[in-house]
Amino acid sequence: MKLATFRQADGTTRAGRIEGDEVVLLPVAGVGELLGSGTDWRASASQAGQRVPLAGAQFGRLVSQPSKVFCIGRNYLAHIREGNSEAELPRFPEIFIKFADSLTGAYEDIPLPAGSGFAKLREAVAAAAEAPTVSVPAESDFVDWEAELVLVIGHAVRRADERAAEAAIAGFTVGNDVSVRDWQFHTSQWTQGKAWEAMSPVGPVLVTADELGVRPDLRIRCLVDDEVMQDSRTSDMLFDPVELVAYISRIVTLRPGDMVFTGTPSGVGLARRPQVYVRPGQVLTTEIDGIGKTVNTFVAEDLHLDD
Amino acid sequence: MKLATFRQADGTTRAGRIEGDEVVLLPVAGVGELLGSGTDWRASASQAGQRVPLAGAQFGRLVSQPSKVFCIGRNYLAHIREGNSEAELPRFPEIFIKFADSLTGAYEDIPLPAGSGFAKLREAVAAAAEAPTVSVPAESDFVDWEAELVLVIGHAVRRADERAAEAAIAGFTVGNDVSVRDWQFHTSQWTQGKAWEAMSPVGPVLVTADELGVRPDLRIRCLVDDEVMQDSRTSDMLFDPVELVAYISRIVTLRPGDMVFTGTPSGVGLARRPQVYVRPGQVLTTEIDGIGKTVNTFVAEDLHLDD
Repeated sequence: MKLATFRQADGTTRAGRIEGDEVVLLPVAGVGELLGSGTDWRASASQAGQRVPLAGAQFGRLVSQPSKVFCIGRNYLAHIREGNSEAELPRFPEIFIKFADSLTGAYEDIPLPAGSGFAKLREAVAAAAEAPTVSVPAESDFVDWEAELVLVIGHAVRRADERAAEAAIAGFTVGNDVSVRDWQFHTSQWTQGKAWEAMSPVGPVLVTADELGVRPDLRIRCLVDDEVMQDSRTSDMLFDPVELVAYISRIVTLRPGDMVFTGTPSGVGLARRPQVYVRPGQVLTTEIDGIGKTVNTFVAEDLHLDD
Repeated sequence: MKLATFRQADGTTRAGRIEGDEVVLLPVAGVGELLGSGTDWRASASQAGQRVPLAGAQFGRLVSQPSKVFCIGRNYLAHIREGNSEAELPRFPEIFIKFADSLTGAYEDIPLPAGSGFAKLREAVAAAAEAPTVSVPAESDFVDWEAELVLVIGHAVRRADERAAEAAIAGFTVGNDVSVRDWQFHTSQWTQGKAWEAMSPVGPVLVTADELGVRPDLRIRCLVDDEVMQDSRTSDMLFDPVELVAYISRIVTLRPGDMVFTGTPSGVGLARRPQVYVRPGQVLTTEIDGIGKTVNTFVAEDLHLDD
C-alpha cells in the first residue's frame, strides 16, 4: 500500500491510500494517527472510503508529530570511505536525532536560517523606519544534503528480536537529513547541526513493508537543481533497517509514527573537493525508486520584525 | 512559586502550587499543561483552589511529555578539567538530548536495563517451565550519575535575545542525567548512552524564576547511598541558563515544558580512579538547595516473559 496524509479544503488533514490515480480517504487525520490506532493499522488502512483524484490532491506532513526521529551516521559503505578511504567500519550504529520540529513536508520550501546579526539588523531597520519584513544574512553558509531512506514504525516495540523488528516496520518513505555543517561541528555532538527547524523534508508517501520488504534494495538519488549529487542503492547499508530497529529498541521504546533516517550514500557536499553548499533558489530533489521523491526549494528566510 | 504535578486517588493528575505544608490544586492535569496554557501561565498558577495537605501528597511526573529535552555536556569548569586538567574550554555549548520516554519521576525506581541475553534466557526458562518473571543480567555494568540543574521553558521562543531568553525560563527543577557509559561511547555520538528508557529522574518541584532568578547560584549535590559524589555550585557553569536558551533557540523553537539539563559538576563515576558505577539496590539522591531533591533506587529490571 501507498499511504499519505492529505490537506483538505477546510484546513484539516486526512490519511489516504493511493490506488492508481485515485486517493481513498480514510477516517483519520493522517498516517501518524492511522499507525497509532492499534496493531491492526493494516486493516484500517485497507478499508473502503471516498475516492478523490490524486491529481490536485495536496500532500501534508506524512506524520505530524513523531515522538522520536532517529538518524544514523556513516551507514553506507561508500560514504564511510569518501572522507577517508582507510576508515574502519563502525562496530555499532552511530545514532543522532532530529525533533518533530526539524521536519518539513515533501514539497515545502526549506528556509536557509537567518543570521545572528538579526538583532542588530532590527535596530538598524527600526532606526531607518524601513519595511517590516527584511531578508538578512544566513546563519550558515554551509547547508548540505543527505538523501536517506526513512523507515517508519508501525507499532510500539522494545527489545525487538529480528522477527519483532521486522514486524514493527510499517514501511518506508523518502527523507533528506539536511545538515548545517558549521554548527554540526561546533562541538563533538552533531545535534546542533542536524535538528534545525523545518529544514529536513520527509515524505510524501509511506510505501508499506509488505510491498517493499524490510531490507529494500532501491536506487536512491539526490539532485541539487539538475546535478546528480548522490546515486546509490539502499543495499549498500552497513546496518540494515531490521538491525537498526533491533538495536535502537534495546535503548528505548519505538512508537507508531517514529522514524529512523537510515543514513546517506556518498556524494555529500562536505566530502567534495572543493566542498559544495546550497544557495537560496536551488532545488533539492531526493528520490528513491519505488517510493517517490521530495522536491524542496531553498529560500532565504524572511523574518518579521515583530517576531 | 513552587509548582508540581500530583497524582490523584482516581488515577488522574493535577497541577498544584505548594504553600508551606499545603498544596493548592489547580484546574489542569499537570505543570506541562499549566505552562502550555498560554503566556499568562503565572496568573493561572497563582489562582485560588482546593487546599490539601502536602504530607501524603503523591508527586507525579513534573511535565508528562516535553517535546524536547536538551542536555549540555562539559559545562561546569571543574568537570571539564576532571578528566584532563589541560582541557580547553568549549567555545560552544555541547548539546545532546534525551526523549520524554527517557525521563522518570523524582522518587521512582530506576531500572538497570536487562541484557541482550534475554532472548536466550527466555528459551532456557521456557524449556525449564520456570516462573513467568525472571531477573536477567544487566545490559550495562557502567551506569553513572550526573546531577544537574534543569531549566524548564515557560513559553515558546525562537531566536531569543538575552531579554527574551530570560523571560522564557519558567524556572528550575532537579535532574540526573543518568548515563550508560559503555553505550555512550559505542560511537562518537552519545545519544545511545543518554536516552535510555525511564532512567533519568526529574522533579519533583518547579521553582519559578521570579524566586530563584534566571542565573541561580545554588549548592548542587549527588549522593550514592550515603556517599557524597558531587558537591558544587550552579554558578560554576560555563554557559549560564540564559545563554543556553539563547543559543538553542537559534536552532529550533523551545516550547512550554521543554527542558534543558544544564550540565553536571565534577565527581562522576567515569572520572574516578578507579571508576565507580552503580549497582542494584543503591539509592541515588540528587539535591539542589532551594529547589528540592530526587531520591531513586536502582533496581535490577524484571522482564515478563510474555513481553
